[in-house]
Amino acid sequence: MYVILVYDMGEKRVGKMLKHCRKYLNWIQNSVFEGEITDVKLKEMLNGARQIMQEKEDSLILFKSRDERWLEKEVIGQERMSTDNFL
Amino acid sequence: MYVILVYDMGEKRVGKMLKHCRKYLNWIQNSVFEGEITDVKLKEMLNGARQIMQEKEDSLILFKSRDERWLEKEVIGQERMSTDNFL
Repeated sequence: MYVILVYDMGEKRVGKMLKHCRKYLNWIQNSVFEGEITDVKLKEMLNGARQIMQEKEDSLILFKSRDERWLEKEVIGQERMSTDNFL
Repeated sequence: MYVILVYDMGEKRVGKMLKHCRKYLNWIQNSVFEGEITDVKLKEMLNGARQIMQEKEDSLILFKSRDERWLEKEVIGQERMSTDNFL
């Protein structure tokens, strides 16, 4: 399935979360990721994310779509992270 | 149509952008908005956003879907901005 993931984390945990999410998805903006992912990998990713998060302070929102074609993406201004192989 | 909007702005412009986007969409996380919007209103919103943005520095990504039902949303941790009538 295709997912968009956005998080809002306490500063101390941001770096760790970024690293974690990049193992599974493409980083497209500051705290925004997208990509194709299987159910199994998604579960694994969310379990890992829960370990990093303080659920009383942090927030993670996931939008899931069965098919990427149902979403159209438009970028205005800088396309920050189109290719994704540094860091 | 249903849209998800995420931005990454220079600090000086964040407040203005937040105020602008909230006129059109629901604020669901730090720099993330969602909602139903017409083509005309979307155009108006993006024109306004372009006035606020420094296109060489800032980034705005819009995901558009003809139907909200094509997306499933999952929130982990804090649901920061579920109702949206303050500020």
